[in-house]
Amino acid sequence: MDFLRRYLPILDWGSRYDRNALSNDMIAAVIVTIMLIPQSLAYALLAGLPPEAGIYASIAPIVLYAIFGTSRALAVGPVAVVSLLTASAVGQVAETGTAGYAMAALTLAFLSGGFLVLLGVFRLGFLANFLSHPVIAGFITASGILIATSQLKHILGVDAHGHTLPQMLGSLFEHLGQVNWITVIIGVSATAFLFWVRKNLKPLLNKMGLSPLMADILTKAGPVAAVVATTVAVWGFGLVDRGVKIVGDVPQSLPPLTMPSFSADLFGSLLVPAILISIIGFVESISVAQTLAAKKRQQIKPNQELIGLGAANLGAAFTGGFPVTGGFSRSVVNFDAGAETPAAGIYTAMGLAIAALFLTPLVYFLPKATLAATIIVAVLSLVDLSILKKTWNYNRDDFVAVLATIVLTLGMGVEVGVASGVAISILLHLYKTSRPHVAEVGLVPGSQHFRNIHRHKVETDPTLLALRVDESLYFINARFLQDLIQSRVTEGTKIKNVVLMFSAVNEVDYSALESLEAINLRLKDMGIGFHLSEVKGPVMDRLKTSHMIDDLNGEVYLSQYDAVMALTHRDAKAS
Amino acid sequence: MDFLRRYLPILDWGSRYDRNALSNDMIAAVIVTIMLIPQSLAYALLAGLPPEAGIYASIAPIVLYAIFGTSRALAVGPVAVVSLLTASAVGQVAETGTAGYAMAALTLAFLSGGFLVLLGVFRLGFLANFLSHPVIAGFITASGILIATSQLKHILGVDAHGHTLPQMLGSLFEHLGQVNWITVIIGVSATAFLFWVRKNLKPLLNKMGLSPLMADILTKAGPVAAVVATTVAVWGFGLVDRGVKIVGDVPQSLPPLTMPSFSADLFGSLLVPAILISIIGFVESISVAQTLAAKKRQQIKPNQELIGLGAANLGAAFTGGFPVTGGFSRSVVNFDAGAETPAAGIYTAMGLAIAALFLTPLVYFLPKATLAATIIVAVLSLVDLSILKKTWNYNRDDFVAVLATIVLTLGMGVEVGVASGVAISILLHLYKTSRPHVAEVGLVPGSQHFRNIHRHKVETDPTLLALRVDESLYFINARFLQDLIQSRVTEGTKIKNVVLMFSAVNEVDYSALESLEAINLRLKDMGIGFHLSEVKGPVMDRLKTSHMIDDLNGEVYLSQYDAVMALTHRDAKAS
Repeated sequence: MDFLRRYLPILDWGSRYDRNALSNDMIAAVIVTIMLIPQSLAYALLAGLPPEAGIYASIAPIVLYAIFGTSRALAVGPVAVVSLLTASAVGQVAETGTAGYAMAALTLAFLSGGFLVLLGVFRLGFLANFLSHPVIAGFITASGILIATSQLKHILGVDAHGHTLPQMLGSLFEHLGQVNWITVIIGVSATAFLFWVRKNLKPLLNKMGLSPLMADILTKAGPVAAVVATTVAVWGFGLVDRGVKIVGDVPQSLPPLTMPSFSADLFGSLLVPAILISIIGFVESISVAQTLAAKKRQQIKPNQELIGLGAANLGAAFTGGFPVTGGFSRSVVNFDAGAETPAAGIYTAMGLAIAALFLTPLVYFLPKATLAATIIVAVLSLVDLSILKKTWNYNRDDFVAVLATIVLTLGMGVEVGVASGVAISILLHLYKTSRPHVAEVGLVPGSQHFRNIHRHKVETDPTLLALRVDESLYFINARFLQDLIQSRVTEGTKIKNVVLMFSAVNEVDYSALESLEAINLRLKDMGIGFHLSEVKGPVMDRLKTSHMIDDLNGEVYLSQYDAVMALTHRDAKAS
Repeated sequence: MDFLRRYLPILDWGSRYDRNALSNDMIAAVIVTIMLIPQSLAYALLAGLPPEAGIYASIAPIVLYAIFGTSRALAVGPVAVVSLLTASAVGQVAETGTAGYAMAALTLAFLSGGFLVLLGVFRLGFLANFLSHPVIAGFITASGILIATSQLKHILGVDAHGHTLPQMLGSLFEHLGQVNWITVIIGVSATAFLFWVRKNLKPLLNKMGLSPLMADILTKAGPVAAVVATTVAVWGFGLVDRGVKIVGDVPQSLPPLTMPSFSADLFGSLLVPAILISIIGFVESISVAQTLAAKKRQQIKPNQELIGLGAANLGAAFTGGFPVTGGFSRSVVNFDAGAETPAAGIYTAMGLAIAALFLTPLVYFLPKATLAATIIVAVLSLVDLSILKKTWNYNRDDFVAVLATIVLTLGMGVEVGVASGVAISILLHLYKTSRPHVAEVGLVPGSQHFRNIHRHKVETDPTLLALRVDESLYFINARFLQDLIQSRVTEGTKIKNVVLMFSAVNEVDYSALESLEAINLRLKDMGIGFHLSEVKGPVMDRLKTSHMIDDLNGEVYLSQYDAVMALTHRDAKAS
């Protein structure tokens, strides 16, 4: 039972479900459903898929997440960045609008779901940590710019393509002659309206005396208003004949049962994008889930979250969807609207199923430009170039990683961008730890404390070189320490003893052990004693398994003070 | 002048050169020259090149290293592992014995030399640190096995090929029918003789009353004896007619002036191997140089060493050679024979030039099996599987890296092997730091010290969660800390304050800063105070450039003791 409860969180909250929770969840579900209809259509468009795929991708995944996920408020479905990644990955193996394209999207969801479940079962959620915050911020910002640019073709009513900013802009420029001005009017006014709603409607409604919650919900319903108004306009004025592209026929159906492809070739070309989508989707989802959970002192289990998101993606693969994850805006709306349990998600799925069955004829005349406008307004809120300034002020290494991620994502596409960002962050980190801070220390007069000789007035002894190493010792910096000590002792010819103060050394790996042994041997050859002090318990335990401590041409002292007392005393006796 | 002296160490030792140094250097040069003749021929054979290439590769490079290098005793020339890497790289772009093969070897030396010089000029020697000691040890051991196996074909007198152990063994097995038994007799007796010389001759000579130095030199001259004996045998018994393969015609000439190819295609396919050869050669060379320098309290400058080795390789590229580096055995002989300055290398080069001009006809009848025997005996001393046991006992992560390096080098070739070893070491290190040791600490009674509550009897307060983080905080472990604190505070509902003790935190990057801010916000939402203590100066300086400290829902205390006094006192007043 504990095993089941661990892997099926629904058993936990389901057993305590009551009428109060039911009514709260129902209200939240209605609000989220209304908001999700245009959003689902729009993200399907962004992913290059028929509109119904967006609705299908919001039904089974929500239910599966409700069963397996640990967040009470997370709403799972298509999101902007994952849809962009889908378009980029699937666009490389199939043409938009073909059956192969839809099949590739299902397969991508299947691979991504499988990968997430594996990560969860093997408790490998830590892999998501390879994406540093600045890299994520840079990637999201660059993706926002890419997504907004990719939608300009719908606003202009032209055909254009490309997966990088130069490609997109070049293609738009080439097709500039084909601009459909009625589409532009619809697209620009929808965009302007949605920006106004986002910026000004909420304060206005608040001033008019609406409750903050109500004002918030009405603001979030802005896209619905734009959808209704432009659909009616296209229908009423017969704008389809004037070249305005519309959503058109959407089948009236529950999500169909579909099978992803199991072709080894397709697996091969979609595996890397699937891994990328999984990790980026997981990072986005868990950040939202944790932020919302913290507000109610609830707990999110990262490895179980992987299983929840994995199940959701597998669900999408078998019900005509495409890759999904926990979305920021829908989850916040769900939370604010009072959702108490994942059952709210199940009711939302029911609402969307009803919409898929009965409401799809209503969006026949919905112009694609309106959907593009909702996407642009949504994603431009993700664009935040201030991360460049923040990291510049705080830490140049992080700045380099962000800048590289943004430039490479825009210029060479999402996959190259995020992979380079990860590689650069890791290399910069390794570089930093390869030259650790090593302070020469001396005794603070009248105390037993040792401090950096360059920062404090301290007592030193010319025969004693005391170094505090401010980093764990491992292969990347092992040689650095060796070189440093070598150069210090060849410079300071009076030195008779070297003491390494290990208070900040949390680990000594085998390479560092060999370096310490080499230092020991070389100092021995020179007739210099080599000592350690303040070695931490776990480090000492490990050193004792080697010959290092037995062979040491010196002692291991409990404290630096003991070391200095013993070594300067010994010298005093000798002289 | 300081600039010149920095880049031309010859100006330093050259200006103090005297007659005493001259005679010591001359004696060392004679000994090293005699030892180098068979070795150079053998390593050329290993690299798949004509024998004279080995002699050429030992002349200009030695002189150039003497001008630019910083080690007094290092002897530069062809070495076993680099020759193997050359064979593997060049074998992928050309057929052995063709002009294209020799050209590719020159180009490889050119690229490697250029890369080393660039590393040196841009002071990027730290890149060599990416090779951890266990990875190097595993790689050298696996290379030794590969090299010895690759020479079996010469001992058996058959044609065989392959760059991995299964390929080589498979190919040998296929050609087993063609074994030439006279070649086998020569090869096996030469191998047995050389093993006997290495193991037993020195103690025997010592017992016979020879000085240790003389005994050592005679032992090192073993290959010369084997060369003379087998050459005479082949010539005297006319064994060439019996199918014994011999070195044959070697041109009587000084090193020719050659040009590497500048084809972009060839550059493309040789660049990665060139980088690998450079880094592995540099690591081997600098280890030898530092070990020898330490014995005389001399100093090696790693970045100038890169320039010295780079110049040596460029020299090899323009004088008919192939990639070179500082060799272990020749450097030790040079050092033991009393070489005082790099001038000894210049005299060795002169000796080899004389040999190239006048002695090459003498090796016409030298059987290839003898050269193979000298290689096998030399490289088997590199094979040391004890690194597996040592790392297993010390540290499982290092063990995994060694094992993977050995298995992949043997099974998939030198390049895959070493690249995987590096990648695995980095990933394991990142994994380790991704879950840092975090100890919950309490006050040791009657002191101001704080210790792990699980290891020591300490006083704690149920309203206060005090955690000591034993690792720098950066993107890989930022989320870990977030999750840890989240789960601790949701478990312990009495907690009113959290204190992070930062005594072992040497760095906080931007990701970790954002995690701290997130922790701060979440704890604030829960009404819990968030405090830091014992923050190091540089870390505090950086934190102050952000809003973190201003926004902190708590205080930064100088010591953990101050923090606990203030927070439990405050609580005491409140209750």
